[in-house]
Amino acid sequence: MNRDIDRVTELFVPENAIEKTKSEALLLPRLDISKMDTQWVQVLAEGWAAPLGGFMNEEEYLQTLHFNSFSEDVNQSIPIVLPITTDKKEQLFGCEEIALWYNSKPIAILRKPSFYPHRKEERVCRQFGTSHPNHPYIKTIYESGDWLVGGNLDVIERILWNDGLDDIRFTPNELRAKWREMKADAIFAFQLRNPIHNGHALLMQDTKKKLLERGYKKPVLLLHPLGGWTKDDDVPLHVRILQHKAVLKDGILDPENTVLAIFPAPMNYAGPTEVQWHAKARMSAGANFYIVGRDPAGVPHPDPNTSGDLFDPTHGARVLTMAPGLSDLEIIPFRVAAYDKTKKAMDFYDSTRHNDFNFISGTKMRGLAKDGVEPPAGFMAS
Amino acid sequence: MNRDIDRVTELFVPENAIEKTKSEALLLPRLDISKMDTQWVQVLAEGWAAPLGGFMNEEEYLQTLHFNSFSEDVNQSIPIVLPITTDKKEQLFGCEEIALWYNSKPIAILRKPSFYPHRKEERVCRQFGTSHPNHPYIKTIYESGDWLVGGNLDVIERILWNDGLDDIRFTPNELRAKWREMKADAIFAFQLRNPIHNGHALLMQDTKKKLLERGYKKPVLLLHPLGGWTKDDDVPLHVRILQHKAVLKDGILDPENTVLAIFPAPMNYAGPTEVQWHAKARMSAGANFYIVGRDPAGVPHPDPNTSGDLFDPTHGARVLTMAPGLSDLEIIPFRVAAYDKTKKAMDFYDSTRHNDFNFISGTKMRGLAKDGVEPPAGFMAS
Repeated sequence: MNRDIDRVTELFVPENAIEKTKSEALLLPRLDISKMDTQWVQVLAEGWAAPLGGFMNEEEYLQTLHFNSFSEDVNQSIPIVLPITTDKKEQLFGCEEIALWYNSKPIAILRKPSFYPHRKEERVCRQFGTSHPNHPYIKTIYESGDWLVGGNLDVIERILWNDGLDDIRFTPNELRAKWREMKADAIFAFQLRNPIHNGHALLMQDTKKKLLERGYKKPVLLLHPLGGWTKDDDVPLHVRILQHKAVLKDGILDPENTVLAIFPAPMNYAGPTEVQWHAKARMSAGANFYIVGRDPAGVPHPDPNTSGDLFDPTHGARVLTMAPGLSDLEIIPFRVAAYDKTKKAMDFYDSTRHNDFNFISGTKMRGLAKDGVEPPAGFMAS
Repeated sequence: MNRDIDRVTELFVPENAIEKTKSEALLLPRLDISKMDTQWVQVLAEGWAAPLGGFMNEEEYLQTLHFNSFSEDVNQSIPIVLPITTDKKEQLFGCEEIALWYNSKPIAILRKPSFYPHRKEERVCRQFGTSHPNHPYIKTIYESGDWLVGGNLDVIERILWNDGLDDIRFTPNELRAKWREMKADAIFAFQLRNPIHNGHALLMQDTKKKLLERGYKKPVLLLHPLGGWTKDDDVPLHVRILQHKAVLKDGILDPENTVLAIFPAPMNYAGPTEVQWHAKARMSAGANFYIVGRDPAGVPHPDPNTSGDLFDPTHGARVLTMAPGLSDLEIIPFRVAAYDKTKKAMDFYDSTRHNDFNFISGTKMRGLAKDGVEPPAGFMAS
């Protein structure tokens, strides 16, 4: 991936071919796909996983599972694959093109499909480091089809969700255009699937300060919450967006130098494997700094008899700095911020005054929210 | 790895330091290690895993699990790690050096040890694509310590097994010296953990023929059976070696252009992950061609309710051609040979005469051997 290239390749058909492709799709054998599959079509179409030209064929899938990358220059840690049932596969085997339908309309054409077994046990082991069926994303894999179908995609039109948030779903190329327009000389990206709190804001302010000290004139923050599928007990997207907007409105983050946008991918909860994907996708959008949290993309161990996190919380940031294809992206490790009870404000944790600090994790916050308990004053934007 | 370099780095202390290192070891805190761990010490000491300087620290371990490689130039797909119990770890924590003992004598010094958790579920999932506790090597992992200890090794002396076979345990540098002595211009390596049969011999003869046709003057075969730990129902090493020697004695393989040697590593049964290690180790010994079998390092699925192989039998050879750090090694895919009942001899399988062929796998042969049934005439060297 060359950051000097102004655009990533998208998989949308040219505007003057939309009607023709729609007509073509209506005549082709039809495969109805799920909402999550459609989120992956969007991810591919918009170029977040560039240079991937469609759903992975088996060679690409094997490279992802074994090497987390296609080459030393191209990271790809997460399989982007389309599961299909055995019945449907038998029906479509031998077709040269397949129309993918979602919500009663064709959204894309899959060209030269290749079918291969969805070896679920092996996939989830290599992708997640566990095969526990209670893991939220693994559950969706076990419920999906026993085959995968790969092939290049021609995507008919922009994918919209009509949930009032499409106006902040920017493609990588639209974000790149914004950076040029804003004359940004450093883009630092931050992703959350949890509510944002003032500790996060402190970290972003601090990153900006450091970039200015390093001589950048116009560092811009890509505030980029994940917008695809999440597990049931995560805070819904529209609530998180309202709250991100409040942080900006309160001036806790400078709206002039921040772009709030939604990253369309589903959440995998794949820890050190997934954080590479999160970073790579932001590289596609032109970011050159990536803030990585403690235990990124982590979850509690899905086995109720095992306490603690599924992943070692330090592995995410460490694997990220070793990963092939991400060397152009500077990784900024998360400094731990906590609520300083003496200051009644968030501050970077100082281990010499341990008892003055109160740690409130995303998980704890979700608990507070569920129980209707207010977090301490100064913890969140109101 | 540069094939122009005549030697790989070994971890043995220089000859004039042996006595001093022995004396030093006797004064150090002691860690008794298993036979399998000692096989890994031998692998490391002799340079099969070069440039690895000892048992992996956590950074090396993470690179292996996530990327199967240290860089685009250095493949390392299998963790080479030293498990240690929690008790022993607590006792040794903070030591600057540890003496490793096997069979009542010190064999190596581990310098600057670093301890990290042996996250077994995650390790076996990422390494084997399954966490089934009946898998033969996974079982040994679950029985081992809950911590790993990494650090550089000073190995005191050559590791010998005194089983009458030490005279064909050559180090990579000794093999490289042989190639020079023999004026070999192509080295093609073949590994088996199963008995060798005339179908294998046919393949090796055919490979030699093709190398001569390509203009090589002196292709030499490294006939390199695995000599470390194997599962209980595999044929014991000394039987396999006798049988390899019979094939050479009968002239089925040309003894002039073949070097029979033992590869000291334990078997992992890790399929596509392990075959990379098998290839990399032979690169260390100077091989430039590697013959890869159907389902290399494969096993039946360890779950008795799941029929078939644990790995897709085609994945090994495919992953091998994609793997970082092995591009200097040409992979020769195994052509299927079978017993031609009309010829009463092994020949390459011809699908147009399917019924004339009899397929006898390594597993089937172990079965025949166990039941005392003779394989068909012409199948094996006698």
